[in-house]
Amino acid sequence: MKEPSCIVLGGGGFLGINLCRQLATAGYRVRAFGRRCLFPDALRDVDWYQGDFNNGAALASAMQTYEIVFHLVHATTPQSANLDMKGDLEQNVVSTLALLDISRKLGIKRIVFVSSGGTIYGSPKQIPTPETAPTEPIAAYGVSKLAIEKYLAIHEILYGLEYRILRVSNPFGPYQIPVKNQGVISALLSRGLRRETIEIWGDGSVVRDYVFVADVIAALEAALNDSSSERVFNIGSGCGRSLAEVIACVEGILGTRLTIDWRRGRSVDVPISVLAVERAATILGWTPTVSFESGLQRTLDWWRSVKV
Amino acid sequence: MKEPSCIVLGGGGFLGINLCRQLATAGYRVRAFGRRCLFPDALRDVDWYQGDFNNGAALASAMQTYEIVFHLVHATTPQSANLDMKGDLEQNVVSTLALLDISRKLGIKRIVFVSSGGTIYGSPKQIPTPETAPTEPIAAYGVSKLAIEKYLAIHEILYGLEYRILRVSNPFGPYQIPVKNQGVISALLSRGLRRETIEIWGDGSVVRDYVFVADVIAALEAALNDSSSERVFNIGSGCGRSLAEVIACVEGILGTRLTIDWRRGRSVDVPISVLAVERAATILGWTPTVSFESGLQRTLDWWRSVKV
Repeated sequence: MKEPSCIVLGGGGFLGINLCRQLATAGYRVRAFGRRCLFPDALRDVDWYQGDFNNGAALASAMQTYEIVFHLVHATTPQSANLDMKGDLEQNVVSTLALLDISRKLGIKRIVFVSSGGTIYGSPKQIPTPETAPTEPIAAYGVSKLAIEKYLAIHEILYGLEYRILRVSNPFGPYQIPVKNQGVISALLSRGLRRETIEIWGDGSVVRDYVFVADVIAALEAALNDSSSERVFNIGSGCGRSLAEVIACVEGILGTRLTIDWRRGRSVDVPISVLAVERAATILGWTPTVSFESGLQRTLDWWRSVKV
Repeated sequence: MKEPSCIVLGGGGFLGINLCRQLATAGYRVRAFGRRCLFPDALRDVDWYQGDFNNGAALASAMQTYEIVFHLVHATTPQSANLDMKGDLEQNVVSTLALLDISRKLGIKRIVFVSSGGTIYGSPKQIPTPETAPTEPIAAYGVSKLAIEKYLAIHEILYGLEYRILRVSNPFGPYQIPVKNQGVISALLSRGLRRETIEIWGDGSVVRDYVFVADVIAALEAALNDSSSERVFNIGSGCGRSLAEVIACVEGILGTRLTIDWRRGRSVDVPISVLAVERAATILGWTPTVSFESGLQRTLDWWRSVKV
């Protein structure tokens, strides 16, 4: 087995499933920890530990004998967090403080945390946005991600608990299912295939940095072994695409027009979010390798292969 | 009565007493809210409401009919926060979220929040440190202050609840008593007067930006009426002074040598912290007016006048 051993918190979700599969393929001993796995077959080569991130005893038990923690859990969404900021803070930040305590006691070597490239900067003045830009979230979701980032830093200072933070933009790909208004590409593809109406907020002008999941996973694997002095890395394609362009691409690949129910914009949406990814290139030797079109095709192939 | 009416949360503490006295003198209707007042006589012209910041019902009741909230409460210290980060987060950030909810429901016009100029930047790369410097706290105390700042911003975006943030450096002056390792100038003066031994952490090289309390209060009053688009202001003297220099000044003014028990440095101490205060000068028309020596003399006079 390749060292070090890895536990993936949120291992049953979109990024988690993709990460666990890649780590297992690469030869790491890997355990997936989560409340549920939406695609149990996808994890059949991975040790699955069912548990709640907010349950410290379950977490501590699951983490024993593992060296690296991938922290992919966020109990809320950009939409839900604003409706209950206290709950968002408690479920995400307070629970992460418990995770940090457990990690310290168990002698965990490193925590790799997936933060939010799309919300942590707020409405950025600089596009594409580098890691050094001010962090001024305009929604509670970004505040709790930011607070977790800061507590990670403090635990390294106080206790030598290593960490890396990946601020991921808008990932898409296999195993992402459109829930709670997230994953617009999954929604477009899956509903388009079924010729269902798709609800879209805004007017299609909102620009995002869509990155294919295999590229995100490659960055997470690179962060696992990074020995640089950097701690925070933007992970995205580095390119902006309007929602209207995305819709046109999906229509092209499906060979059909989509039926869209346009709804008014949400206040948590910034108009444009594109990440500068030079730091990850220089330090991690990572660059995105899958083109948007190719990622879209691979995602479509996956949707055609599954029954959801 | 001068408008608007003001409630000062933490009104019984060091900054709170000074602020309430000044607001009352200036003709504002003012209420002090707090768990206790260390100098009840000092607030005899001010309406006193005893209550716990963590008790939402008491807070809501106290805040009725007031328009401006000065939020001066921080339930922890830079030392204690690291020992119980979860408690720090709950007592300060979660409670502030409750305050923001109440403020929204009561139609509060503005919240003026005292943040921490000494901890929010961490170990700054730029001295003096402007408001635009990265916020990378090295202790949990700074993280909870930062999270509160961010939630204030979000409440203005979502609900139009105005706010101003003053990142205050190291204030000193009358009504500051040396508790929980805070207020080194008070400790030096009061113990020096009584010829007691004073415990000091570090070797005296640590540099801080000491600002006299009357200047801080003037800045708070300016923030009350500010109509600019700026939200965050550093408030300090803009000058750094080593602890060794401070000790020498205190010895000079007391005309005696102090007995100091030197202890090893604490990890929460950054080596140097000096704030750039140009923004407050330009936007608020505020500059510090009391020299360090003069502030020291006024603080000494106060210590001589009280029995603590």
